[in-house]
Amino acid sequence: MSAIADRPQESIEPMMLYMGRLAREAAAELSHASTQRKNAALEAMAAKLEANAAKIIEANQHDIEGARKKGRDAAFLDRLALDGKRIAAMAKGLRDIAALPDPVGQVMESWARPNGLEISRVRVPLGVIGMIYESRPNVTADAAGLTLKSGNAVILRSGSESFLTSLVIANILTEALIEHGLPEAAIQLVPTVDRSAVGYMLAGLGGAIDVIVPRGGKSLVARVQEEARVPVFAHLEGVCHVYVQASADLAMARDIVLNAKLRRTGICGAAETLLIDSAAASTHLEPLVGALIEAGCEVRGDPETQRADSRVKPATDEDWPKEYLDAIIAVKVVDGLEDAVAHIARYGSQHTESIVTEDTKAAEEFLARVDSAIVLHNASTQFADGGEFGMGAEIGIATGRFHARGPVGLEQLTTFKYVVRGSGQIRP
Amino acid sequence: MSAIADRPQESIEPMMLYMGRLAREAAAELSHASTQRKNAALEAMAAKLEANAAKIIEANQHDIEGARKKGRDAAFLDRLALDGKRIAAMAKGLRDIAALPDPVGQVMESWARPNGLEISRVRVPLGVIGMIYESRPNVTADAAGLTLKSGNAVILRSGSESFLTSLVIANILTEALIEHGLPEAAIQLVPTVDRSAVGYMLAGLGGAIDVIVPRGGKSLVARVQEEARVPVFAHLEGVCHVYVQASADLAMARDIVLNAKLRRTGICGAAETLLIDSAAASTHLEPLVGALIEAGCEVRGDPETQRADSRVKPATDEDWPKEYLDAIIAVKVVDGLEDAVAHIARYGSQHTESIVTEDTKAAEEFLARVDSAIVLHNASTQFADGGEFGMGAEIGIATGRFHARGPVGLEQLTTFKYVVRGSGQIRP
Repeated sequence: MSAIADRPQESIEPMMLYMGRLAREAAAELSHASTQRKNAALEAMAAKLEANAAKIIEANQHDIEGARKKGRDAAFLDRLALDGKRIAAMAKGLRDIAALPDPVGQVMESWARPNGLEISRVRVPLGVIGMIYESRPNVTADAAGLTLKSGNAVILRSGSESFLTSLVIANILTEALIEHGLPEAAIQLVPTVDRSAVGYMLAGLGGAIDVIVPRGGKSLVARVQEEARVPVFAHLEGVCHVYVQASADLAMARDIVLNAKLRRTGICGAAETLLIDSAAASTHLEPLVGALIEAGCEVRGDPETQRADSRVKPATDEDWPKEYLDAIIAVKVVDGLEDAVAHIARYGSQHTESIVTEDTKAAEEFLARVDSAIVLHNASTQFADGGEFGMGAEIGIATGRFHARGPVGLEQLTTFKYVVRGSGQIRP
Repeated sequence: MSAIADRPQESIEPMMLYMGRLAREAAAELSHASTQRKNAALEAMAAKLEANAAKIIEANQHDIEGARKKGRDAAFLDRLALDGKRIAAMAKGLRDIAALPDPVGQVMESWARPNGLEISRVRVPLGVIGMIYESRPNVTADAAGLTLKSGNAVILRSGSESFLTSLVIANILTEALIEHGLPEAAIQLVPTVDRSAVGYMLAGLGGAIDVIVPRGGKSLVARVQEEARVPVFAHLEGVCHVYVQASADLAMARDIVLNAKLRRTGICGAAETLLIDSAAASTHLEPLVGALIEAGCEVRGDPETQRADSRVKPATDEDWPKEYLDAIIAVKVVDGLEDAVAHIARYGSQHTESIVTEDTKAAEEFLARVDSAIVLHNASTQFADGGEFGMGAEIGIATGRFHARGPVGLEQLTTFKYVVRGSGQIRP
């Protein structure tokens, strides 16, 4: 571990507050940096990451060794590991962000008043983003790229196991900022693995942090949501539902259910519960449950589902709110749309839910009444993704109700102000 | 005071949590109530307020008597007092809200993906609003009207001095809800003046409150901003600036400065500081300061301003961040746009600032760089108002960076969800 990371704890609070002040100053400068300059810096970052791949991999080897000594499992070590291909992917990510439109300065709407005032609502950066993440060192580059393009300063807090890799990456990114005349403090990595740093960030660094974005496991997100005194863009979990009605095309329902559950089981948009309408129990229940089981999925069902297929295990009350993130699904027969909506309201996580039906009226009622960030009709829940929405890169998915809801991309990292152009108007 | 308001304190927390649960249930129902039904209820509320004017005024007399006994001053008693005219104004406010477009269900944007998915961003209610206010009982009706129309439930916390008036008004509003088949708990008044109720609301009532809106003096807003664990729509103060450049038309600058400062001195959009560019010191400083003084405004200036007019009092460091809300203005000579922007960043409250200049390039730079909710060119800061922006009624003005910034009207009381319509799409 580097010397700076081992500095005594009593010096952490003033250091963190100082980082916050530097970030605030950088944000003020960055808020009116030109698109061209930001893009040039992003391109330079990409090139520098590739040119310094050996240095990054060397630091990464130290991190991996440390994590292995701590007894971290294979999945953890895989998330942590970087090679040439992964570094190239990071560089590509930065180039992709450079190619996206700059949200800053975009006019969201404008109108004229009878007195001649011209009013516009214009996108401006949020300010300072606090990014708290765990083992994936690529988040350093992804988050820095998105925040830079959207005109925000970022304070990055890397997990301790990926600290050295993140430090090398952050230093490379900072070099590119300086070379392109952008404020060095626009991208700062917390230079210590001391856990108290997270607490200071969650308290907002004396008003310097505008929003916290956690990226990592459920315990990290839960702590951030519990303790943060500033807004948080996050989702704790994605307990996503697919609701199949009797009018659903069976082949379509099968495709959607299998895709929603099994395409990738570890992502937040994966379906965790299948609700079958009682009117569809005799037609859709058995084939859908059979298809899931034959595709290798464990099915935990209510009594009616258990009767439909002897391979179904009994579901308990713990299954309905469960995010398996695995090839397991809970299946329940519900009594009409009202019951489906009530089940989702009670057990869901306001993330993503889909209805499969040929009844357009029922679909529209479901879309209107289910209170989730994303609601779909006749499509897989696995589309819950900024890229699939056409937003380009995303920093995560938010299930809160404020400001950013659903995929958090460049636009969601901005706020707005009202710009009013007059010709001497005074208020009567 | 009524018996319910005097109930022992230990019963307050469960009562508040219960109100929160009722509000959450009401919000779920209200989120898909028809525009027609909401408008009919609003019209009925207006009619009922007028029909029950005598009853409201009787309760108000009790409140006024209590406040007088507590030694409240004339301004306080005036804010508290209702008469037939003020009740008619409340009723008109509700009818105006009924006439505004319903934001719920509005499609903010929509686009198609190459795979045929149709994605829309659709406005939905925020959920449950916690409204904490002081002496003005009309806030009961104004806030209930705006939250109802935007599909939100509201928990109203009236100041103790206006409690009886607010209670009578809230009961009348609830009657109209019931008569129109809307959930009774969509509008709830906290039935106690015990101050601990505010603390429970600021803690969010176990996740039941989505946002707090304070309406009242600076100490109330400061407490809410300090203690709230949920988002807050508010402004603590409006230290608004007018910056005059050398190219400004002198007559226009005089009109704007006088209007911005003196039209109404007690509103948050009133100017508190005048910045004169050093290049304009010989041409604009003396006439503008003279005009202010002759209009009855006290001027506190830096040394250069003091030299320009012997009637100018010396400004101290305490004047620059001061919100006078009175016929007093601080005046400073600044060295160019950079210096003006830096002064505003240091002492301003991110509320509303105006530049007066004929130099369009300088104006655009000011509009881009000043980080306030509202920035104006050649117009009075007193336009900082939802009505003047054409938004219809407003619940307040927010200076935070999140979600609602500037006037908070119906649209700002909504959030959005993504509605995705497919034809069987699965993710590859």
